[in-house]
Amino acid sequence: MAKAWHLVSRPQGLPTIDNFALRDLPDAPLDHNQLRVRNRWLSVDPYMRGRMNDAKSYTASFQIDQPMTGGAIGEVVESRMEGFAPGDLILHMGGWRDGGIIGLDMSPFKLPDEALATGMAPQTFLHNMGLTGGTAWIGLLRIAAARPGDTVFVSAAAGAVGSAVVQIAKAREMAVIGSAGGAEKCAWVKSLGADAVVDYKARPVLAGLSEALESLGKPGIDVYFDNVGGEHLDAAFATANDFARFAICGMIDVYNDGHPQEMKYLIRAIPARIRMEGFIYTDQFFECMEEFYADMGGLIASGAVTMRETVHDGLEATPDAFLGLFSGQNIGKMLVRV
Amino acid sequence: MAKAWHLVSRPQGLPTIDNFALRDLPDAPLDHNQLRVRNRWLSVDPYMRGRMNDAKSYTASFQIDQPMTGGAIGEVVESRMEGFAPGDLILHMGGWRDGGIIGLDMSPFKLPDEALATGMAPQTFLHNMGLTGGTAWIGLLRIAAARPGDTVFVSAAAGAVGSAVVQIAKAREMAVIGSAGGAEKCAWVKSLGADAVVDYKARPVLAGLSEALESLGKPGIDVYFDNVGGEHLDAAFATANDFARFAICGMIDVYNDGHPQEMKYLIRAIPARIRMEGFIYTDQFFECMEEFYADMGGLIASGAVTMRETVHDGLEATPDAFLGLFSGQNIGKMLVRV
Repeated sequence: MAKAWHLVSRPQGLPTIDNFALRDLPDAPLDHNQLRVRNRWLSVDPYMRGRMNDAKSYTASFQIDQPMTGGAIGEVVESRMEGFAPGDLILHMGGWRDGGIIGLDMSPFKLPDEALATGMAPQTFLHNMGLTGGTAWIGLLRIAAARPGDTVFVSAAAGAVGSAVVQIAKAREMAVIGSAGGAEKCAWVKSLGADAVVDYKARPVLAGLSEALESLGKPGIDVYFDNVGGEHLDAAFATANDFARFAICGMIDVYNDGHPQEMKYLIRAIPARIRMEGFIYTDQFFECMEEFYADMGGLIASGAVTMRETVHDGLEATPDAFLGLFSGQNIGKMLVRV
Repeated sequence: MAKAWHLVSRPQGLPTIDNFALRDLPDAPLDHNQLRVRNRWLSVDPYMRGRMNDAKSYTASFQIDQPMTGGAIGEVVESRMEGFAPGDLILHMGGWRDGGIIGLDMSPFKLPDEALATGMAPQTFLHNMGLTGGTAWIGLLRIAAARPGDTVFVSAAAGAVGSAVVQIAKAREMAVIGSAGGAEKCAWVKSLGADAVVDYKARPVLAGLSEALESLGKPGIDVYFDNVGGEHLDAAFATANDFARFAICGMIDVYNDGHPQEMKYLIRAIPARIRMEGFIYTDQFFECMEEFYADMGGLIASGAVTMRETVHDGLEATPDAFLGLFSGQNIGKMLVRV
């Protein structure tokens, strides 16, 4: 019998293990347009924190005593859905569980044979070929309209989205400054090709960013890819060149705490004519999916874009993997191997 | 002999009368490409505060012991510049003075005969047909891309820019909520056609804005035209509809004080996909000048857009008029009649 992590209480501030309970899922024969799957990989992502609140957001809230959901890669074991056959590997939204019944509401998508034929690992569709890589690609190239020659600052550069931004920007001939917490993460961001790194745990972000710009002989940043908010965002306003573009992807610094963000340099939006835009992957993904798969697939196949995975083993470890996102435990993409 | 207000010290925080001194200007015969003018109207504008700092901004800083500059309407009394003749009324940047020599660096522009023939007062080119009206028009229609049916929130709605925004938005069939300080200003904003007003001196902005939206049966705002920053901007983030656009024109709340802005709702940029963009009139004005003059001239001629002027008399009153901008003394456009 399949099991799933259920939401049993809503967090105040940081989520804890007590917000979740592992419970059996009901079993039944398949209806028309249903699949039975065995999950192999589960994704945990910062955006799920927002869905744990009982508040209007861009995706529906998780409901108390209902299973959590999220991106997953599974193998079809039984199909009553056209276009799917046992053995198919699919991407779907029925994560936080080891398998079970998947309907159309879970958006099942058969992984393309061409991609798998290149030797691409299936879980790549949970990161570089999926939510996180797509978020990086859309935010950098479409929302921020980053161009070759631009100076790009990206926060949480050792995370799944940030590390993809670093590599896409380098492949497109931009100068890249990444911020990350601690020497190990910073070294990894550097190894991805970042021209300079800012260790936000070692010193104030603005001081580190200013020094990085000076070391590169750059007057300021043209693009900021924000995963963090707060002090990072303010430092980006402080150092923005004229007509800089900020793609606001996440503010993990403020997801769990209700404190206001103290912005000293927001006023530079006017003299520097800064454009700041929040975005969500799914708004744009479907209209540019073909271009994204072709471009990102090429960058991955050529080795220009890689991904380090932080893997937790076993369905039981899913909440720990998720909670680790908020304590900075992950380098690259946080995954659960079922 | 012409006189001009000179900058004699840089303000810390709010400017004071002691930052300025009235001094004689040097006199000389005209060189080629110079005009001698007698000024009639001088403009004082919030952006001049930024130029009083010794800091990189979008316009050069005013220099100590040099004359202040700013928009002015003058009459040509002697000309060695092609296209200008004695008696012509011109718009130029040699303000803060009663007249003197004007070169090409002061951007002299002959007021169009067609406009004057409609009975338009010359000082209109210092507000609705100039900097403030152009700022309103560009910010609302181009930067924020406001469309008929949108719900528009505008701060400092009793000011020169804000009151133009209110009227342009109403002429374009938008719902408009204006904020202003005190019952008199709010009543005037209402008389301009605003559907609802928020008196920010009477209660927190967010409470007033939420109530205004409810009274209009609107779920949130589609456009925010910011002249103020701080609490107003945060309230706009709090109430923004999906895909709202913010045109950031000014942050008069923070020009004079170094305190950080406390933003509780900035994070809504992501779920609501808010686009915020700082802008400066001169970046876009010249490419859309013809369209602006035609459109705004029509709105003024039809009575759809009017302007209340707060007039100080005499060159001596110029610093007082300017300082009054920061204590909320003006309704509409603050002008000095020389």
